[in-house]
Amino acid sequence: MPAKAKFQFSDVDYKAVNTIRVLAAEMVQKANSGHPGMPMGFAMVGHVLWTRFLQFNPDQPFWAGRDRFILSGGHGSAFLYSMLHLSGYNLSMDDLKNFRQWESRTPGHPEFGMTPGVETTTGPLGQGFSNAIGMAMAQRYIKGRFALRGTSDFDPLNHHIFVELGDGDLQEGVASETASIAGHLKLDNLVALYDDNRISIDGGTDVSWSEDVARRLEAYGWRTIKADGTDPEAIFDAIQNALDSDGRPTMILFRTHIGFGSPNKQDSEKSHGAPLGEEEIELTKKQLGWDYPPFTVPEEVYELYTEVADRGREANRDWEEKFAQWLTDTGNQTMWAQLIEGDMPEGWADGMPEFEAGTPVATRGASGKALNFFANKLHAIFGGCADLAGSVKTYINGEPDFLPGNPSGRNIYYGIREHGMGSIANGIALYGTLRPYTGTFLIFSDYMRPPIRLAAMMGLPVIYAFSHDSIGVGEDGPTHQPIEQYATLRAVPNLWVFRPGDANEMVQAWKIALERLDGPCAILSTRQGLPVYNRTVFTPASEVAKGGYILADAEDGDPELILIATGSEVGLAMATREKLVEEGRKVRVVSLPCWELFDEQDEEYRQKVLPPTVTKRVVIECGISMGWENYAGDKGLILSKETFGASAPGKVLFEKFGFSVEAVLEAIKMM
Amino acid sequence: MPAKAKFQFSDVDYKAVNTIRVLAAEMVQKANSGHPGMPMGFAMVGHVLWTRFLQFNPDQPFWAGRDRFILSGGHGSAFLYSMLHLSGYNLSMDDLKNFRQWESRTPGHPEFGMTPGVETTTGPLGQGFSNAIGMAMAQRYIKGRFALRGTSDFDPLNHHIFVELGDGDLQEGVASETASIAGHLKLDNLVALYDDNRISIDGGTDVSWSEDVARRLEAYGWRTIKADGTDPEAIFDAIQNALDSDGRPTMILFRTHIGFGSPNKQDSEKSHGAPLGEEEIELTKKQLGWDYPPFTVPEEVYELYTEVADRGREANRDWEEKFAQWLTDTGNQTMWAQLIEGDMPEGWADGMPEFEAGTPVATRGASGKALNFFANKLHAIFGGCADLAGSVKTYINGEPDFLPGNPSGRNIYYGIREHGMGSIANGIALYGTLRPYTGTFLIFSDYMRPPIRLAAMMGLPVIYAFSHDSIGVGEDGPTHQPIEQYATLRAVPNLWVFRPGDANEMVQAWKIALERLDGPCAILSTRQGLPVYNRTVFTPASEVAKGGYILADAEDGDPELILIATGSEVGLAMATREKLVEEGRKVRVVSLPCWELFDEQDEEYRQKVLPPTVTKRVVIECGISMGWENYAGDKGLILSKETFGASAPGKVLFEKFGFSVEAVLEAIKMM
Repeated sequence: MPAKAKFQFSDVDYKAVNTIRVLAAEMVQKANSGHPGMPMGFAMVGHVLWTRFLQFNPDQPFWAGRDRFILSGGHGSAFLYSMLHLSGYNLSMDDLKNFRQWESRTPGHPEFGMTPGVETTTGPLGQGFSNAIGMAMAQRYIKGRFALRGTSDFDPLNHHIFVELGDGDLQEGVASETASIAGHLKLDNLVALYDDNRISIDGGTDVSWSEDVARRLEAYGWRTIKADGTDPEAIFDAIQNALDSDGRPTMILFRTHIGFGSPNKQDSEKSHGAPLGEEEIELTKKQLGWDYPPFTVPEEVYELYTEVADRGREANRDWEEKFAQWLTDTGNQTMWAQLIEGDMPEGWADGMPEFEAGTPVATRGASGKALNFFANKLHAIFGGCADLAGSVKTYINGEPDFLPGNPSGRNIYYGIREHGMGSIANGIALYGTLRPYTGTFLIFSDYMRPPIRLAAMMGLPVIYAFSHDSIGVGEDGPTHQPIEQYATLRAVPNLWVFRPGDANEMVQAWKIALERLDGPCAILSTRQGLPVYNRTVFTPASEVAKGGYILADAEDGDPELILIATGSEVGLAMATREKLVEEGRKVRVVSLPCWELFDEQDEEYRQKVLPPTVTKRVVIECGISMGWENYAGDKGLILSKETFGASAPGKVLFEKFGFSVEAVLEAIKMM
Repeated sequence: MPAKAKFQFSDVDYKAVNTIRVLAAEMVQKANSGHPGMPMGFAMVGHVLWTRFLQFNPDQPFWAGRDRFILSGGHGSAFLYSMLHLSGYNLSMDDLKNFRQWESRTPGHPEFGMTPGVETTTGPLGQGFSNAIGMAMAQRYIKGRFALRGTSDFDPLNHHIFVELGDGDLQEGVASETASIAGHLKLDNLVALYDDNRISIDGGTDVSWSEDVARRLEAYGWRTIKADGTDPEAIFDAIQNALDSDGRPTMILFRTHIGFGSPNKQDSEKSHGAPLGEEEIELTKKQLGWDYPPFTVPEEVYELYTEVADRGREANRDWEEKFAQWLTDTGNQTMWAQLIEGDMPEGWADGMPEFEAGTPVATRGASGKALNFFANKLHAIFGGCADLAGSVKTYINGEPDFLPGNPSGRNIYYGIREHGMGSIANGIALYGTLRPYTGTFLIFSDYMRPPIRLAAMMGLPVIYAFSHDSIGVGEDGPTHQPIEQYATLRAVPNLWVFRPGDANEMVQAWKIALERLDGPCAILSTRQGLPVYNRTVFTPASEVAKGGYILADAEDGDPELILIATGSEVGLAMATREKLVEEGRKVRVVSLPCWELFDEQDEEYRQKVLPPTVTKRVVIECGISMGWENYAGDKGLILSKETFGASAPGKVLFEKFGFSVEAVLEAIKMM
């Protein structure tokens, strides 16, 4: 980073800014869809940030010491792609010309893993901003862990998290949740760049938005700085000031002009979500004094950005040298391997907790035991709960809380902010190789669906601990009782959903979730105690790895009836089986805690567990039946709960709603 | 409401406050579950509000002129039930003793429709607060509509909306969204009572919460007042001031003490979510100077509240007289019948828009036409969009915007706040008999699931217009393309989900949605144009009322193959059928826009449409298959989309992902 010096801004700088504006407008025009206005309005801020401040190496997009830049207003993707192209990332002019086309690396909204330099998938508003806050928390945590062992003058993670955001991000509630957390945690490694262009898709933001943003952010504990987003020196000073920590996160409010340079569409919603049109592009070029053929980057602009990139390459080289020394000095080799490179130490799953048959155990309790066991082995586990740590059992015992005064603390207090918790977990997963987990009641998964979907889309290994997973919640009543949530979670592509049938299945679920690196896992647990099965009599719980398995079988392995269940209903299936066996019936119980894993097994295994010849099947799950037809078959029966619950003790509810041995036996008789 | 006078607070008043505290603690103790601390801490505020300000008639819980009181912190239900019992509502001491038990009228969280005087279902935090804002908007809108016709000195809706809320409500993002809207709209009919007890379930709120709440609310455009929530005169003055409008909504920050009176659990999370314990209750009674058997209301306390209730009865009688005169004076009879009593004027559905076959029509366009048609007939239709009015086609043309200067405006600008929009719509539906609608892209239904679930639970007739309903979204890419959303919406009990197959089905869907009074409807529409079917050749679109119907049949009515589809895929089914018919095949196309309605039909009809004998069935829907097994059967085929989408023009995506006539024909060949 340059020392504070007299700021200079050359003609080439101005030309570079116009390059970004025109490129973005041309990309959108060629694609005949997209958002030209944001890039045009934000280009000046972007250019000053990129050329004067941003620490990056285009050849090493995942250099651990890089600054992060997140475009929370993902609709402005043409801005980001232009910057990455200019900066020497592996993103060609052809890629830019291919904007928003099939299999291009320049999709409509930035997608993590698709384009080098894109730090997270954005588009759904409020998410990128919140991811950035998660990254800032991850950075602090990792530094805190390193410091436990030793420090030196060099800090390999001495960088910042920059996040662009717009009015839409600030309107979304999730941003309120996470901004409040960022202020509370005093994340001074975070610099938010608010693109205050005062235009949204429906027109001026003043139709729905009259709040005092600076005052609001200050109330959350942020520092705010206002600057003219068209004045390079003002931008420079503002960012410079922001990097000079006063112990708070900083938001710079840049007054910008959407569609800057367009004579008829600047400061209008007309430049927000549609191409400018060929004619207006010509007028814009004229106004900007731009006289190049389409998709041209003037040579001197490339040169300017090559210098910037070279500075970054140099910084990276310098960093590598110091880093090697730092590793030796601080003895953080294994910690670095775990927290930045994803190493799982050998034997991390050795000696997992085992539960003896006899005393019933609530699977939330087993979940807490599993989490604590693994957290003790893996420093990468970092998470917390939305004000229900005691109920969901998400607290890591013996470890400090993650609070401003304790950067190595591992227990995050999210407050009652489920949506923000999910979005922050994504940011944590995106930074380094941490293993974030979250905790709340299953019903409140409804509050955090947008980040769950994004975790699944990005393939992030986030673990969601959801307790109180049925009407077993009891007295709290229907607002707190999941009914459709098993189905709605299973519906998310690439999310694995576990509903373990006893304490030992729960431990296995955690192990499998931690082994999974290419997507998120939801682990559902009960409030109430469940029987623990004697695994010397019944099949070992390690079979959870296959998603579903024969827990108890007909004596000759040739059942006439299969009971399929998950979670607390496995106990009901087992008790029903016992009654039927007494009557001389041949009954199999299949525990099916994870559809996604079971469906991944080969046909032979699946048919072994659910032979096509055995069409007499009863599925028991205390939620809606949607999707179970697949396992029950046309002749099968699904004992489900299709309506909302009620307020009463959990045991009473199970009885009243037909989840009793008697009711299951009755239903089987009618088949 | 009493004139501003010297405030007096008697011994009986103090006793009444302790009655509330002790009753609540006893209810929770007897149920052995619940939250005693909130009622104990808030009792003083509640008592002053109820006895000095609140306008209500316990015999007429739905008196239109009543003040509304919403308990957003629904876990404090014991407070509300105690107040309703004391105030003479039909809620007996036995009901209180039956707290949280099977079929009691005192469920764990307040449920609308279950208990007289409960204005909305609360528990999931942030919702009640946001419902209150919707109610305040509805009140203003209805008054604005009345004023269009005429005014008099009397105002039948001269009341306030009071809402209790806690830290958890303010932490949830939805509260940020709706507080911002309330400030923007200058809802001075709204008084929020913040129960600032600084304790949450995990401990002191300071572990996750350090914002300056007053400053934050002021930034949203609110007036704030601080008061000691244990000092009756301070409470009185604060509420008195709040009722004196300064043109803004008001939040009173009451510093309270959770578990007030409990020597060992006051100001501690120990009184938040668990019974105090018999011993602590005894100690509390001692500290409060309480010497009565359990569940006792001292006679003088009943008398005090009877006086209060009688004042309300009297006010209601007085109101009735003036109201009759007002109706005559202003000529608002029909408007009152529509907006407060749910009347639908005769012929409201006559002359619905019809679309001719020939030109393709995007169903979002047809949705806009339908909305405009019906809005012209029904003043009760009141809604808006989350900054996508032009895209979702939710604007009511020729009607003004709902902005502070125009209370009769019908178009609400929600900004980019989907969650808040849903929660506000619930509030609008709960006030009078309005018919709220919302608008956004289908993908963002994920942001608003909590209020959708509550609308379904309460049976509120809210209509959700969701456009851009598939990969047909095109270039915006996977973050904006619904895949699992059909399934996840269908999963919600009591929500009807429509995915109309052409413009005429869309009009029918709106009609059916408007006819429905006992629950919400989601109406999904396309971005892209769809064929419009010639309804003189094919079955009339009015068959949408049956949820699913035979759109086109085998010539002899005896098909060998049934193609089942919804929305844009109906066109694909029809085109495929055409090809097969050319080959001499006998093919039926079933359009199945609404599962819930189809499932409600009698077996005869369902078997007519999908005869059990025709097992060769192909379902085509561009989303996950979950649940379709039910209609496809074991031998059927489901052409679905199980993974996230991509960024490219919509037409390209349909081709690439196998939604083409060729691909469908190929799949059928393989059957």
